[in-house]
Amino acid sequence: MSIPAAYSHIASNLGAPPFLPLKRDHVGDAPLVNLTGGVPADDILPYESYQKAIGRVLEDSDTAFPAVSYVSPFGIQRLREQVAHWREVPVENVLITNGAMNGIFLAAQTLIDPGDTVLVETPTFPYALNIFRRAGARLESIALRAGGIDLNELEQRLREGRRYKLFYTIPDFQNPAGTLTSAEHKSRLLALADRYGFAVIADNPYRELWFDHEPDGFPDDYRHAERYSPLYEIGTFSKTLGPGWRVGWTVASSDAVRRMGAIRACVDGNSTALGQYAISCLLQEPQWFERLLEAERALYRGRARALASALRAGFGDAVAFDEPLGGFFLWLGLPQGIRIDDPHVQDALAQQNVLVTRGDSFAPEQPGRDPAHRDYADHVRIGFSALPERDLREGADRLAAALIGLA
Amino acid sequence: MSIPAAYSHIASNLGAPPFLPLKRDHVGDAPLVNLTGGVPADDILPYESYQKAIGRVLEDSDTAFPAVSYVSPFGIQRLREQVAHWREVPVENVLITNGAMNGIFLAAQTLIDPGDTVLVETPTFPYALNIFRRAGARLESIALRAGGIDLNELEQRLREGRRYKLFYTIPDFQNPAGTLTSAEHKSRLLALADRYGFAVIADNPYRELWFDHEPDGFPDDYRHAERYSPLYEIGTFSKTLGPGWRVGWTVASSDAVRRMGAIRACVDGNSTALGQYAISCLLQEPQWFERLLEAERALYRGRARALASALRAGFGDAVAFDEPLGGFFLWLGLPQGIRIDDPHVQDALAQQNVLVTRGDSFAPEQPGRDPAHRDYADHVRIGFSALPERDLREGADRLAAALIGLA
Repeated sequence: MSIPAAYSHIASNLGAPPFLPLKRDHVGDAPLVNLTGGVPADDILPYESYQKAIGRVLEDSDTAFPAVSYVSPFGIQRLREQVAHWREVPVENVLITNGAMNGIFLAAQTLIDPGDTVLVETPTFPYALNIFRRAGARLESIALRAGGIDLNELEQRLREGRRYKLFYTIPDFQNPAGTLTSAEHKSRLLALADRYGFAVIADNPYRELWFDHEPDGFPDDYRHAERYSPLYEIGTFSKTLGPGWRVGWTVASSDAVRRMGAIRACVDGNSTALGQYAISCLLQEPQWFERLLEAERALYRGRARALASALRAGFGDAVAFDEPLGGFFLWLGLPQGIRIDDPHVQDALAQQNVLVTRGDSFAPEQPGRDPAHRDYADHVRIGFSALPERDLREGADRLAAALIGLA
Repeated sequence: MSIPAAYSHIASNLGAPPFLPLKRDHVGDAPLVNLTGGVPADDILPYESYQKAIGRVLEDSDTAFPAVSYVSPFGIQRLREQVAHWREVPVENVLITNGAMNGIFLAAQTLIDPGDTVLVETPTFPYALNIFRRAGARLESIALRAGGIDLNELEQRLREGRRYKLFYTIPDFQNPAGTLTSAEHKSRLLALADRYGFAVIADNPYRELWFDHEPDGFPDDYRHAERYSPLYEIGTFSKTLGPGWRVGWTVASSDAVRRMGAIRACVDGNSTALGQYAISCLLQEPQWFERLLEAERALYRGRARALASALRAGFGDAVAFDEPLGGFFLWLGLPQGIRIDDPHVQDALAQQNVLVTRGDSFAPEQPGRDPAHRDYADHVRIGFSALPERDLREGADRLAAALIGLA
């Protein structure tokens, strides 16, 4: 019997893992400085509040049984209402998901048929590319610039007759590039989506973690839609309360939410009821979440600035980067001539025992139609959220020690 | 712009909800007796233990951060090891999932390409049918009998040249029919699967909830496979600890587990870390789970027997059913000539304010090749797990009051 035929096309063509590997075997005994993480800081998460909230849920006879039972595939009503109130949309426009990834997956299931073309900005989050590929989509790319993709370039392609099923974008504190888009950009993008009939998946896990200014929102008309809207806004508690909860949400037209919920009913039924009740209980406490967000913003702002200073001190003008305005990542342009896919460069990093995420992880394998397509091997992503400032400075020093003079 | 084209084929063709509706508006003021549930009993679930386990996880600095962070798509190592030990397979053969439904979904993703034929026993769990349809499968059915499907009939079809990508079965305490399959049946089914190259998804959420005798297992050779095995055994804590945890598992060849894990990494990342750590903590306590299972078996056995007695008392010989040997359901053959898709029958039930699950929910919409294909509208499923014996007797009395003399 032919074993490969035992698996589906998807399972037979899994491809490389989304994040490309770096050498991890090192010399010397300096402890590893791991700058790859995209997780919240251990020291900011309020474990005691979590424990108390779960206690309240399990001690209350109104919630104990529902919290360990089947609940709606759309999410428990209380949490849907709280997210709807917070995100300023009607409750019918909110779907609770297993984190942001699950929102992207369900939106993709709702939108993509095999052969459809998905437009992605590059660099971008590689797990999303896998979701679209496995749904049978062809990928086309368009380069990200300061302030988002070039909408004139997009409009040009559309005028030339190119058609997309959807455009996948991370509008604010983009992963990996840190880009932010304005209200005007968001508004014009949706006008193009309306005119040319494509959907927009706006994946926004870092949106709440701004340092000085809250990002602009998408226009209300598109967020409150009942029958149709091109917009699917993906949010999550993963970056603020922790990814282990697996609780996120999607804001979309109520018609799209109905379809996503019906699909997810036969993917895994519903998101963890216990986690939903616990988070709902936390959000009920006046100002609790807002105060946590403020503390998180201050912590991550301090870490981002410490990292940026240390990189400037270590590299001088040899590297190029924008200081992060929010989120978890700094996107570092390597010194001229240095590429992260070069084994010598990887050796030099391994010798310093420092780990970063390879920039070429964030480019689609096949270049799209964009004539300026790049593989981003001249960049690395540095996650600053999970490490204290001391470790970030140590990491920046080691990067400089490894890379300065290598080119 | 054409709105329907905005959605994928799947989202445009969601079909009817898996469980067909019954009228719920009733007259009189007798409180509803709801016999549709497939959930554990509220009064048996150990909420205090749950709360303590979560407390231990969040107070222990070794587990607090991991429990709210990203974990492996395969599940946390501790829980995988515990499930592997309990289910007597190597740890590489275990994948942790979001409940059993997610195991079926991931197995389907790993196996099915559009156009493949999936063989299902009828009656069967309708959510699984939706999973297979949405993966693009054609469905063919084969009738369930006492002791499982007729394997001679299956072998006959295979000899005639029929080919299946997979056979979906609920081997023990089948939902809805309550059927149990023997070691010989399981063994011969897998031999046919090997010979004719189809996979077997054995969905077994009720397996632990036997009343007098533990069900036979599948042969070890098929459960311990590294490179290839046709067998995908789906299990869950949903029926024993509660579905709200969303923690289940699949036992399959380690090669299949690797593929399922890689697929689920881009569906929702991983199952709730907090729930996995909490359940792992509960399972660490010696005998805790075994004692809970014993109490649950005793409770459900008593409820099943009370329901069966009351049905016999109310209907006499007018109905046909097998006394449940485990699980949550009794599959009731209605009195001669009575069909649950008949509005008069539905009216009579609504007047008694009693809810059951329609038997015709468990038949595929399109009849398969089985010449004995039935729509099962002459049956209803009665869930006895969630209600005290008094309510079950009341429910049986109302069913009899509604249906006796209607035919």
